[in-house]
Amino acid sequence: MENLLQENCIPCHGGVSPISEEEIKQYKPQIPDWSIINQENSSYLERCYQLSDFATALVLAQKIGEVAEKQGHHPTLIVEWGKLTVQWWTHAINGLHRNDFIMARKTDQILQEL
Amino acid sequence: MENLLQENCIPCHGGVSPISEEEIKQYKPQIPDWSIINQENSSYLERCYQLSDFATALVLAQKIGEVAEKQGHHPTLIVEWGKLTVQWWTHAINGLHRNDFIMARKTDQILQEL
Repeated sequence: MENLLQENCIPCHGGVSPISEEEIKQYKPQIPDWSIINQENSSYLERCYQLSDFATALVLAQKIGEVAEKQGHHPTLIVEWGKLTVQWWTHAINGLHRNDFIMARKTDQILQEL
Repeated sequence: MENLLQENCIPCHGGVSPISEEEIKQYKPQIPDWSIINQENSSYLERCYQLSDFATALVLAQKIGEVAEKQGHHPTLIVEWGKLTVQWWTHAINGLHRNDFIMARKTDQILQEL
């Protein structure tokens, strides 16, 4: 099975279907701590990281932002004291794309390296 | 009338009342673009800044974070592509403190200098 950590995002400008249930089953085990949230005809991936303070949350947000810029795919980051919540979804298809699973895996890796 | 921009936060460890309606009327005109959101027995200040891209939102978050560290008072920052939402409230009193109005004014100033 392909390792999401080795993959890169491909541009998604819409016109494609969201990721299939079959693909979700394939990729989800690589990001076990992420939740798939279904909301108002859309879905997104979410993980909340508990951290030691505000500054650490902001440093992590910065590092995720750098990878997001490189990959051309951007999350929602909610920075609070001792907590960073990360959400990934694909605006162009109003749902989940394989890119989101790739970025969730890369996000976990960034935290491990922090 | 005192200029919030010249003020600094004072430590708040609880045991004091939230800001009074009278004080809110006094300070709110200095932060006209902020909303006071009342939610579940608490209140917070919120402003959403429309920005040109994700990187700009993250730069602004970083600058707000630096001022927050100096003042010892921290917001919730929601970073998205082209948008930064900032929320200020005081955890120790589960509501609004004068510190939050000071920080909202300083946040506006940071954006003006961006």
